[in-house]
Amino acid sequence: MVSTAGQVILCRAAVAWEAGKPLVIEEVEVAPPQAMEVRVKILFTSLCHTDLYFWEAKGQNPLFPRIFGHEAGGIVESIGEGVTDLRPGDHVLPVFTGECKECRHCKSEESNMCDLLRINTDRGVMLHDGKSRFSIKGQPIYHFVGTSTFSEFTVLHVGCLAKINPAAPLDKVCLLSCGISTGLGAMLNVAKPKKGSTVAVFGLGAVGLAAAEGARIAGASRIIGVDRSSKRFEEAKKFGLTEFVNSTEHEKPVQEVIAEMTDGGVDCSVDCSGSVDAMISAFECVHDGWGVAVLVGLPSKDDAFKTNPVNFLNEKTLKGTFFGNYKPRSDLPSVVEKYMNKELELEKFITHEVPFAEINKAFEYMLEGDGLRCIIHMDA
Amino acid sequence: MVSTAGQVILCRAAVAWEAGKPLVIEEVEVAPPQAMEVRVKILFTSLCHTDLYFWEAKGQNPLFPRIFGHEAGGIVESIGEGVTDLRPGDHVLPVFTGECKECRHCKSEESNMCDLLRINTDRGVMLHDGKSRFSIKGQPIYHFVGTSTFSEFTVLHVGCLAKINPAAPLDKVCLLSCGISTGLGAMLNVAKPKKGSTVAVFGLGAVGLAAAEGARIAGASRIIGVDRSSKRFEEAKKFGLTEFVNSTEHEKPVQEVIAEMTDGGVDCSVDCSGSVDAMISAFECVHDGWGVAVLVGLPSKDDAFKTNPVNFLNEKTLKGTFFGNYKPRSDLPSVVEKYMNKELELEKFITHEVPFAEINKAFEYMLEGDGLRCIIHMDA
Ligand SMILES: [Zn+2]
Ligand SMILES: [Zn+2]
Ligand SMILES: [Zn+2]
Ligand SMILES: [Zn+2]
Repeated sequence: MVSTAGQVILCRAAVAWEAGKPLVIEEVEVAPPQAMEVRVKILFTSLCHTDLYFWEAKGQNPLFPRIFGHEAGGIVESIGEGVTDLRPGDHVLPVFTGECKECRHCKSEESNMCDLLRINTDRGVMLHDGKSRFSIKGQPIYHFVGTSTFSEFTVLHVGCLAKINPAAPLDKVCLLSCGISTGLGAMLNVAKPKKGSTVAVFGLGAVGLAAAEGARIAGASRIIGVDRSSKRFEEAKKFGLTEFVNSTEHEKPVQEVIAEMTDGGVDCSVDCSGSVDAMISAFECVHDGWGVAVLVGLPSKDDAFKTNPVNFLNEKTLKGTFFGNYKPRSDLPSVVEKYMNKELELEKFITHEVPFAEINKAFEYMLEGDGLRCIIHMDA
Repeated sequence: MVSTAGQVILCRAAVAWEAGKPLVIEEVEVAPPQAMEVRVKILFTSLCHTDLYFWEAKGQNPLFPRIFGHEAGGIVESIGEGVTDLRPGDHVLPVFTGECKECRHCKSEESNMCDLLRINTDRGVMLHDGKSRFSIKGQPIYHFVGTSTFSEFTVLHVGCLAKINPAAPLDKVCLLSCGISTGLGAMLNVAKPKKGSTVAVFGLGAVGLAAAEGARIAGASRIIGVDRSSKRFEEAKKFGLTEFVNSTEHEKPVQEVIAEMTDGGVDCSVDCSGSVDAMISAFECVHDGWGVAVLVGLPSKDDAFKTNPVNFLNEKTLKGTFFGNYKPRSDLPSVVEKYMNKELELEKFITHEVPFAEINKAFEYMLEGDGLRCIIHMDA
């Protein structure tokens, strides 16, 4: 194989030219990686709600043309100056948030909110020189959250790549680069249910089911799923859920329904819905004395979380998490190992697979609320 | 000394006949302790805001005539049937909330909110038979939070008494039976600052200063006091405070002032003011990634805690505590030992002392916001 290092690569990418319009597969130029950057050949990617949200661009500053995509798995093609942790051939998961290993957050045992590489949805260029590495006949195409994995090749900051076990199948573990790790980590790293405990999960999308999977792994004995729709209740049993509450089917607030089911409340709860009402219910349904609620889902811009402060004084704790409190480079390799050890199951999250040429189908499935994750095969 | 066990004791008590009216020192009959009860000779008591609040009876069901008082130290006079943990002569601190050692909360490592003996401000009688142990010429006088320490003798459930080192001076350690332990425990047991960390304390009354004392003991390097009044700023230095913010002197929200002073926020904060605005500031002023805020102060009835949920998603944690998360019987003896070891200083909290006959002066000092704690000497 002839090395492409140092050269512009011509390859296919799915370009979003306008908000909400189908992506177009184009031939793009991908510039070589600059200092502390890495160029990666993407083999598999999947679609996450965050891509859809910024593609629709209903609430944010639109930034187009842009290459979306942030859940993926790939192989390092070449490295830029100063990169010592990775080399060509390494298997990697790109992550929308990074770990510089130098800042106060990276040095803290608790935080994963790196000062340098924290998610920035407004920036469409590389940190190093404020420029894009993508172009079409010289016209720059914007990056998305530093990953832009809807391209056969992409360029990332080295701090946004987790080096993983090369034996791990990238068409499965690519899911760990965003949503599944977010839900799993919210449960295992933040809510931390003990063996035998009672847990509630609000919002049964892929992230919520990953939180349930975390509770199952932790040995929770009751895992109560809460959603406004009952359509996933059957499927959710595969993820360890033991009981279900359709919040639209009760006159009383769902926190009261859960308190009755559980003799005063659950030991911990996780909200993955992003609905502020669900967040409040998720908090208020935990048991006084020891209950912990964890917020994961992103709220709408002007939402306010509101509760009687006495709930806190009754020794309920409320936390939130970003990317399941995983530090991308330090922690993701061990999450991949959980899959390799068969502790964590990923196959059940994959409900669709499409060739890259049909990437717009993945958007349709998600818009219709059909399925959990759609794996996009870049080589097809 | 002739034993009084099993007999009615006639002694002095300060009776609140009506809401907001000066207490009257009366001769009361104190019945012997029933099953699982203990009669205690009170030697020292002090006045806490909770007494004042229920004596004023502005927001709650008035229950009069009543004997208030819940911060105190005394000696066991006699025990009722089934009491095995205490015997006459033991030195004890009465506590407004109890520890039955049998319920789910008592068995949990995290909770101190005993199902059986949790504070109940509406109950004016003993659990055992629904009757009062106090009377004046046969007319029952109500108890207050199971303690009623403004009496030379009082009767408590055994679960509301902490047995302490008999060498500890009761005129000092009586302060540990409520406010000081509440503030100290909020910091040491819940906020848990690490050595060298930066801390904020909202509300510089006795509880807030006890929280500051906790931060000092934990080795915090910056302790920022926040209050709406500057009058305690000088005095507060004795409690380890290094900086002060008068929240009324800034145009911008105090959480922004603190973020600027601390490069993004404090490591932890404790609100002891009970003002809902201060609670919100205390939460929002902690650093993202690792900050923990703890609510201690009691809000007004219809207050709502309100914040943008993104604050949680940025990995700030909000907790609350009740009695500093101390289990009264299990944990208070070791807090007394902290005083005995000179780790914890109590003298600086004592700003007034009065004989029992002048107990109304203690109410006046508190109403005027004058001083921290007033020790009431029962034998004078
Ligand atoms: Zn960093
Ligand atoms: Zn995502
Ligand atoms: Zn109990
Ligand atoms: Zn008190």
